[in-house]
Amino acid sequence: MALDVGVIGVGTIGQEHVRRLDGGPGGSRVVAVADADTERAATVAGQLPAAKVLPSGEELIASDAVDAVVVTSWGATHEPYVLACIAAGKPVFCEKPLATTQEACRRVVEAEVAAGRRLVQVGFNRRYDPAHRALKQAVDDGAVGAPLLVHCAHRNASVPPHYTRDMSIADTAIHEIDELRWLLGQEVTAVQVFTPRRSSRGGELQDPLLLLLEMADGVLVDVEVSVNVHYGYEIRCEVSGETGTVELAEPAPVRLRREGAVAGLVPADWRERFALSYDVELREWVDAVAAGRPPQGPSAWDGHVAQVVSDAALHSLHSGGRVSVELPEQPGPYR
Amino acid sequence: MALDVGVIGVGTIGQEHVRRLDGGPGGSRVVAVADADTERAATVAGQLPAAKVLPSGEELIASDAVDAVVVTSWGATHEPYVLACIAAGKPVFCEKPLATTQEACRRVVEAEVAAGRRLVQVGFNRRYDPAHRALKQAVDDGAVGAPLLVHCAHRNASVPPHYTRDMSIADTAIHEIDELRWLLGQEVTAVQVFTPRRSSRGGELQDPLLLLLEMADGVLVDVEVSVNVHYGYEIRCEVSGETGTVELAEPAPVRLRREGAVAGLVPADWRERFALSYDVELREWVDAVAAGRPPQGPSAWDGHVAQVVSDAALHSLHSGGRVSVELPEQPGPYR
Amino acid sequence: MALDVGVIGVGTIGQEHVRRLDGGPGGSRVVAVADADTERAATVAGQLPAAKVLPSGEELIASDAVDAVVVTSWGATHEPYVLACIAAGKPVFCEKPLATTQEACRRVVEAEVAAGRRLVQVGFNRRYDPAHRALKQAVDDGAVGAPLLVHCAHRNASVPPHYTRDMSIADTAIHEIDELRWLLGQEVTAVQVFTPRRSSRGGELQDPLLLLLEMADGVLVDVEVSVNVHYGYEIRCEVSGETGTVELAEPAPVRLRREGAVAGLVPADWRERFALSYDVELREWVDAVAAGRPPQGPSAWDGHVAQVVSDAALHSLHSGGRVSVELPEQPGPYR
Amino acid sequence: MALDVGVIGVGTIGQEHVRRLDGGPGGSRVVAVADADTERAATVAGQLPAAKVLPSGEELIASDAVDAVVVTSWGATHEPYVLACIAAGKPVFCEKPLATTQEACRRVVEAEVAAGRRLVQVGFNRRYDPAHRALKQAVDDGAVGAPLLVHCAHRNASVPPHYTRDMSIADTAIHEIDELRWLLGQEVTAVQVFTPRRSSRGGELQDPLLLLLEMADGVLVDVEVSVNVHYGYEIRCEVSGETGTVELAEPAPVRLRREGAVAGLVPADWRERFALSYDVELREWVDAVAAGRPPQGPSAWDGHVAQVVSDAALHSLHSGGRVSVELPEQPGPYR
Repeated sequence: MALDVGVIGVGTIGQEHVRRLDGGPGGSRVVAVADADTERAATVAGQLPAAKVLPSGEELIASDAVDAVVVTSWGATHEPYVLACIAAGKPVFCEKPLATTQEACRRVVEAEVAAGRRLVQVGFNRRYDPAHRALKQAVDDGAVGAPLLVHCAHRNASVPPHYTRDMSIADTAIHEIDELRWLLGQEVTAVQVFTPRRSSRGGELQDPLLLLLEMADGVLVDVEVSVNVHYGYEIRCEVSGETGTVELAEPAPVRLRREGAVAGLVPADWRERFALSYDVELREWVDAVAAGRPPQGPSAWDGHVAQVVSDAALHSLHSGGRVSVELPEQPGPYR
Repeated sequence: MALDVGVIGVGTIGQEHVRRLDGGPGGSRVVAVADADTERAATVAGQLPAAKVLPSGEELIASDAVDAVVVTSWGATHEPYVLACIAAGKPVFCEKPLATTQEACRRVVEAEVAAGRRLVQVGFNRRYDPAHRALKQAVDDGAVGAPLLVHCAHRNASVPPHYTRDMSIADTAIHEIDELRWLLGQEVTAVQVFTPRRSSRGGELQDPLLLLLEMADGVLVDVEVSVNVHYGYEIRCEVSGETGTVELAEPAPVRLRREGAVAGLVPADWRERFALSYDVELREWVDAVAAGRPPQGPSAWDGHVAQVVSDAALHSLHSGGRVSVELPEQPGPYR
Repeated sequence: MALDVGVIGVGTIGQEHVRRLDGGPGGSRVVAVADADTERAATVAGQLPAAKVLPSGEELIASDAVDAVVVTSWGATHEPYVLACIAAGKPVFCEKPLATTQEACRRVVEAEVAAGRRLVQVGFNRRYDPAHRALKQAVDDGAVGAPLLVHCAHRNASVPPHYTRDMSIADTAIHEIDELRWLLGQEVTAVQVFTPRRSSRGGELQDPLLLLLEMADGVLVDVEVSVNVHYGYEIRCEVSGETGTVELAEPAPVRLRREGAVAGLVPADWRERFALSYDVELREWVDAVAAGRPPQGPSAWDGHVAQVVSDAALHSLHSGGRVSVELPEQPGPYR
Repeated sequence: MALDVGVIGVGTIGQEHVRRLDGGPGGSRVVAVADADTERAATVAGQLPAAKVLPSGEELIASDAVDAVVVTSWGATHEPYVLACIAAGKPVFCEKPLATTQEACRRVVEAEVAAGRRLVQVGFNRRYDPAHRALKQAVDDGAVGAPLLVHCAHRNASVPPHYTRDMSIADTAIHEIDELRWLLGQEVTAVQVFTPRRSSRGGELQDPLLLLLEMADGVLVDVEVSVNVHYGYEIRCEVSGETGTVELAEPAPVRLRREGAVAGLVPADWRERFALSYDVELREWVDAVAAGRPPQGPSAWDGHVAQVVSDAALHSLHSGGRVSVELPEQPGPYR
């Protein structure tokens, strides 16, 4: 029941996933890697007991030695690799985004529908974070009654110089977009982006943003997206329901009393905050794929919808005002 | 240096203030009460060592025995009583709202400006809550850098049957309107009210609401107003600044471990949550007035501005969309 | 119903009490002060509208202008002043300790018993702290079932150079000794003091200490006494009962997110932590005394018992081992 | 690099470990099980793809198919199984206790010393709990200065009817005994057990207990052991150092506001609280053993020392008073 995995793209997140997959849960191992930087591919493969370097993602996908594929390459390359996996009938785990435009996402969905079975999982890792799962469990259990409002914050200590205003939506807030659909079991019907006073820490960047998302059942969600908060990395979410609220607790494992304060340390970045969620995400994916079951995680359809909502938010950011979200009918396999 | 106070209107809040003022800080005592319900006035006066019942608020204001006046009568009567106090040259503490329309508030401001000195204080008690003061102190000290966003929630366990949709703004959110001006030192320039999915607990009431307030310096504020949350009374506020955030801590004095949970109790209502703030508010008012100083608390101008913003919010609630707030020039005495 | 108070000893705590009592709750005012340092007495009196300097505590107690006395002088002088007040039939609020030896305390108790009515209140302010009151309320309400164990910590950031090892018991832990008797409604029957590894921050001082107190009903209490913890001033108490526990919550009014941490600030010292408790303590004392009622706070008997337990703890500290506490029969007036 | 594991004893904890080991980290699988209850063994093996039932633990240990052994049988059988593993030169993970008497533990140590290499790991899982690791990290980093005092609580909601007074030490507090040696890097030199007021919830059981442990460097540790607290399962630990303290944070992943309280849920039992620690513990053990490295976890020597301290605590519980802990010299392989 071991699963032999090929990994396309072994940058930061790719290497982390390699570490999780080789000798990992369910007996998975990494048997092939490919990277535009062949030297990097060779280095990573050299540290693995059973991995070969293949000259391209396409050849990796085609290789008989590879049972399933993990795509952690640059976003613009996701679409062709995922389409190739579908064509080859191989399960593929694709880091978010599924593709960089909604049209590209749509093509992946259509290819998978044509293939007649679910092969694609998208790397929206929030769904695997134990705290987010406990949050959803409380909501689903009716612990706070019917949800009415949700308050979210997505805060990064800082971002690299190439980070642009649009990335606050397309790369950052997209996590909340997927999370809210999953958490509430509702589609987003409209979105509006507000631009508060700009942080002087972000240079020319429009930071922070405030997003308002309207869900199909009327639940209203506000999302603070701040990418230069300096103090650390923090994800917050509170669901305000008819009889109470539930929110993510602070994740600090210990409390320190020192220098005039009682404090819990804040994670430095998403790696620290979400390490466990990646473990669970890949373990569950390997378990499903190795057993020949379709993956249960975020689907190509989820990746597509997130992109449509993200595009609506970008439209609001660029043009102002409330933008309705129009979704095509959900294809049968995803219902 | 004792201060002899007359109290007009001795319902719930009036009686609480009487208790605070008689034999209270700075040697204040209540020497006269008036109430439309004369029997109630007699009962309250009967429990006080030095208080007479006077037949009307007007006569109370005119009485030589009365150094200063507290107006805790029904909102619609505030304007004439406050105007009469100004005419009589007597300091007056008026529970919020200063008056029920912005035009009435404006008349009070004009009368006070004409009188040439500050006589009026409005009962926005948040400014006296120790936790809110610590919040403002942290912001003023630069503990979180320049404010960019503020997240507020104003939650009531329940409201009486006569409570209407407009009261969610005019009676409830008006506390946040004054608080934010004070906290941030900025005027509100626009407001927009959103109507999320309606709570089934509130009958026909549109509950909750979400307000977005734009401040003059660009700070954006979201305010959840929920008046049927069932679980208790809770006020939350987090200021998100350039380098960190500061928020009100939970006010529970003890933590209980029992029945599967570690819990802090939530106040049942505003009386329990804000009792200390009323103590401080009246103590500081008595101290100033007894010493012949103008009151330092919320002024008639503050009462007026809160009403203007509240009206703008009501306009947004009724008509939809973003409503700009137009303020007249601030008269000299309030600068 | 105003109360004219004389204050003996106007050092730090004396001046704070003067500020609370003059023009304070219930119409109290300070009409006389006395201090070994007559210049200091003159300075303090000069800032008060109605206070005279009297040449000695004895003359202050004897003065017809003085209705009630507050003793905040040096500990060794407490006994004669309190005895003089009893002889004069005047209510007296005496800062802790009631006297510096249990024999002296005993003489005060006997004098008061002979006088036939309660005139003395001892300044154990913990009983007036809202958080400690909520703690007691929870215990009394049975929120955690019958108490079995109590865990306390008394931590000071630092102590002055003249602070000695015995003061960790007689000046510091004595607060817990009184608090636990009040909180649990039980006498201490034995005490044992342990000397952990010594902090290098305290020089030659034996710091910290760990006290074990056995209560009459078998409840066992551990008390950490640390007087050089550097990080701030903190009082902790958790009552572990049959079905749950209740503990003091952290008193920070706001939570700060900055520099890698989510933090509540810790008070710098006891003044900051317990300011409100002193307000309440003196307000309730003035209310009772001005109304001609005996004070309801800690009695001379409480002061005496605290001293007996403190002496037992000192005996354990000096000689090692468990020391039983032998109390005389409780005189009738205190039952 | 797969590791083929045999499991002796497949009761509750045994089945949990089987689930973790089969198809688990590092490619481990369970190839053999043995249990005194052969039907149970068959049931468990029947759910595994590659496991045979072997008629006895001895035969399992001897089997060529088995690379390494996990002993999760009844405590009294641990010694012979572990000795057999050592004799067979096979790595063995033995659930705590290593053996039920210190003499038996000593025999295991001597056998391993004679074998000349480390083969035994004892299942003290606290060392693998992420929160406990963060606690140790903070202490080791000097975040609170040199430790002086430690406060612990070990609370169970309830215990089964066969649970005896001695088990509060030997089965329950033994976790703290190992944890404190690991956390502080110091041996226990003396122990004293106190018996507070007895909970009426525990029938004849002496519950709770309070243990005082003295460490070699003078650090003093108090441990509340309560096994009928009703409200849930909770492990607390605070290290009080020269400049601050660090304690375990509450592990609840979400915070609920409902029914008058803001609450975090408490785990129901140790399974819920420590699930992740078992995952990490076995993953690290498999990683080491599969790579041919000696296990890095708690050694036979650690198991032996914990038993010696536990016996001293039992002696104090039975006879009263402080009991010194005398340890033999630490054999070379464990230094």
